[in-house]
Amino acid sequence: MSEAKIILEEKEIPRAWYNIQADMPEPPSPPLNSVTQQPTVPDDLAAIFPPDLIAQEASRERWIEIPGEVLEIYRLWRPTPLHRAHRLEQALQTPAQIYYKYEGVSPAGSHKPNTAVAQAYYNKKAGIKRLTTETGAGQWGSALSIACRFFGLECTVYMVRVSYNQKPYRRSFMEVYGAQVIPSPSAETAAGRKVLADHPDSPGSLGIAISEAVEDAVQHGDANYSLGSVLNHVLLHQSVIGLEAKAQMAKADLYPDVVIACHGGGSNFAGLAFPFLQDKFQGKEVRAVAVEPTACPTLTRGQYLYDFGDTAGLTPLIRMYTLGHDFIPPGIHAGGLRYHGAASLVSKLYHDGYIEAQAYGQTEVFQSALLFAQTEGILPAPEAAHAIHAAVVEAAAAREAGEKRVILFNLSGHGHFDLTAYDDYLENKLNNITFSPEMQAESKKTIPKVE
Amino acid sequence: MSEAKIILEEKEIPRAWYNIQADMPEPPSPPLNSVTQQPTVPDDLAAIFPPDLIAQEASRERWIEIPGEVLEIYRLWRPTPLHRAHRLEQALQTPAQIYYKYEGVSPAGSHKPNTAVAQAYYNKKAGIKRLTTETGAGQWGSALSIACRFFGLECTVYMVRVSYNQKPYRRSFMEVYGAQVIPSPSAETAAGRKVLADHPDSPGSLGIAISEAVEDAVQHGDANYSLGSVLNHVLLHQSVIGLEAKAQMAKADLYPDVVIACHGGGSNFAGLAFPFLQDKFQGKEVRAVAVEPTACPTLTRGQYLYDFGDTAGLTPLIRMYTLGHDFIPPGIHAGGLRYHGAASLVSKLYHDGYIEAQAYGQTEVFQSALLFAQTEGILPAPEAAHAIHAAVVEAAAAREAGEKRVILFNLSGHGHFDLTAYDDYLENKLNNITFSPEMQAESKKTIPKVE
Repeated sequence: MSEAKIILEEKEIPRAWYNIQADMPEPPSPPLNSVTQQPTVPDDLAAIFPPDLIAQEASRERWIEIPGEVLEIYRLWRPTPLHRAHRLEQALQTPAQIYYKYEGVSPAGSHKPNTAVAQAYYNKKAGIKRLTTETGAGQWGSALSIACRFFGLECTVYMVRVSYNQKPYRRSFMEVYGAQVIPSPSAETAAGRKVLADHPDSPGSLGIAISEAVEDAVQHGDANYSLGSVLNHVLLHQSVIGLEAKAQMAKADLYPDVVIACHGGGSNFAGLAFPFLQDKFQGKEVRAVAVEPTACPTLTRGQYLYDFGDTAGLTPLIRMYTLGHDFIPPGIHAGGLRYHGAASLVSKLYHDGYIEAQAYGQTEVFQSALLFAQTEGILPAPEAAHAIHAAVVEAAAAREAGEKRVILFNLSGHGHFDLTAYDDYLENKLNNITFSPEMQAESKKTIPKVE
Repeated sequence: MSEAKIILEEKEIPRAWYNIQADMPEPPSPPLNSVTQQPTVPDDLAAIFPPDLIAQEASRERWIEIPGEVLEIYRLWRPTPLHRAHRLEQALQTPAQIYYKYEGVSPAGSHKPNTAVAQAYYNKKAGIKRLTTETGAGQWGSALSIACRFFGLECTVYMVRVSYNQKPYRRSFMEVYGAQVIPSPSAETAAGRKVLADHPDSPGSLGIAISEAVEDAVQHGDANYSLGSVLNHVLLHQSVIGLEAKAQMAKADLYPDVVIACHGGGSNFAGLAFPFLQDKFQGKEVRAVAVEPTACPTLTRGQYLYDFGDTAGLTPLIRMYTLGHDFIPPGIHAGGLRYHGAASLVSKLYHDGYIEAQAYGQTEVFQSALLFAQTEGILPAPEAAHAIHAAVVEAAAAREAGEKRVILFNLSGHGHFDLTAYDDYLENKLNNITFSPEMQAESKKTIPKVE
């Protein structure tokens, strides 16, 4: 039997990020200033982002060198292992070979530190003393807390109040690394005070927390804001996942027929898929599948329009698949996939037919998550379980077709902080909310008109 | 700068466990039947253990081959990485080189599966259908749940009731892998019913849970009992840790001056230290340090006597360092170190001067845990943090002495399920209970007389 893991040495960590903007047959539509409706200029972003990240956002360079200071952190857990899921294959009785890249070995337990570390570094380099951000379930806040500690930056995390109360362990985790965690809405910002004046008992939302974090950064010269997905530079930093995976598959003399990742804002999917799409642009046959929840089917049911990236309408207008910027996705356990939009780069590629999208319900996703845990051992995060389920579906199709397909998916994080979700599944308490015609009609109302 | 991790390939997983009984200058005193006070015979154990494990318990063979079926599971996460703690060294400004073996990459998050998988395999081979065990904080129950699932065995875990109520996530974790988790004391066993009759609201204890698990196994012919530390065969299985660490240090052309591990029942310490002691028996200079909590200082304050391994007095009499078999250690967060005794093999080596022991209080241990998390990234389990603290103390001594000592410790697990402990530390709520003269006087009362 072949090996269960394909390992790279530390010296094989990629030395440059892959920028798909260099190779896309058509560039994505530019972001627009929401007031002028003209393409944004770097100055529009200077109040909250450092120069290097603003430059990366618009860069067309194919390879962007990873700074030594970032590599020095990456090597604490990178390269991450590529596993062959022998035991899952046996359980599925499939002729397919299933591989998964495991990003849960990072100290934060997910792929998020790949960009958190880079963002902390570039902000430190720009003389910034503190980063602000929002977090819902806590994955992104955890990653940024660790990254800030590594570079000696302070970190302020606005955590959606209902999560702050329900997930005290996530808050403690961030505090271990020195972050200040503030339940949102808070009295610290005008945005928060306004919400509290109208709704003193507001449970908060990601949209409100973003508004607070951005306001905090804008109002303090030595503070910047940091975002964990959607933006081009975030997707860029995540390319280390796919670059390593390609090198690992090559060691086994293999190339995947299909690469699969879950899709929330797009950075996890892009991280795995974009380095393979580079080959696809040059004629290589490879499918790339983004997997989303039926409760928030941005790609499969959204529209390709200019819309705001945040609920409050503070961001530039971004052309993307969107369910409407004030669409509030139903409460599902894969909190990281509850985003109304999709990254501009992912949206363009989907629109132009280079990638596919699939949507699944919670129950079937958790069924595959349990099968995976019981065969491969690792308890997956609910977000990552969407990719597992799509891989299970592909493996069944390969069995039907009698084909030895090679399937690669991204296991983007572990589920050690998500056991409430597993409890609900085991007790048959999971809802299976699907995006309805009524939700669809409602979701489009506030999308702005762009000529 | 040298590498941050030393990695072995899958084919470098050890093919045999190291049995220190082959090399000890003096063998440990034999266990005694508690009724006859004569050395136990294999039949004494046949009601609850399979033949292969009973044979391993008494074996003097130096190398015991690891079955292929066990290796096939080990390779899901083994070999585990050996990290060089560059960033911790810098924070401590020490000339010492600090290395740590990280066992938290296993699906259960600790070193426990190294023996759980072996025990499940040998029981399956013996035709056993179900394993019973006890668990307190949940580390061991989690490991055995996963191992049983891998070999198609049922698993019944008697979980101390107060932990069952306080740590619902640990219970859910075990249930994901199909284990039946029963709060103890329960109405399922005579032992449990007896406790409940006298104390309907009993919070339970590890001693009661052991009694229930053993009774369940004894009364059902197709069920056996499984223990997560203390016994010779458990220590044997953990030797993969030290064997891999030796191979990894050799790749860096290094040999440790001191190896350090936390000590509860002894299997984690033995796992790292015994393969190095093999060299020490042949004249190599290497110190081995077992680290325990001041609240339960078995080695540093206990007596070397025959005593029971469990609270209820069901086990054979074992010659070991003990605080008395009905000593109830104060409630500290390192639940895995709250054991009144020490493994027979570890006790003998400590008595004969081959190993050292140190005891530390909770506050200083958590201080080092935070320093470690903030420099190396990984959030350590409270048990493992004892080893970290001892390594920090050694590194400071090396700085004082101006010596480039090589320090190796075992980071036996992560702390993802221990954030209540970190909360208490951050809020200055940790107690620092130390073993008092009164506790010492009380603890010896029930140690049986052996002629």
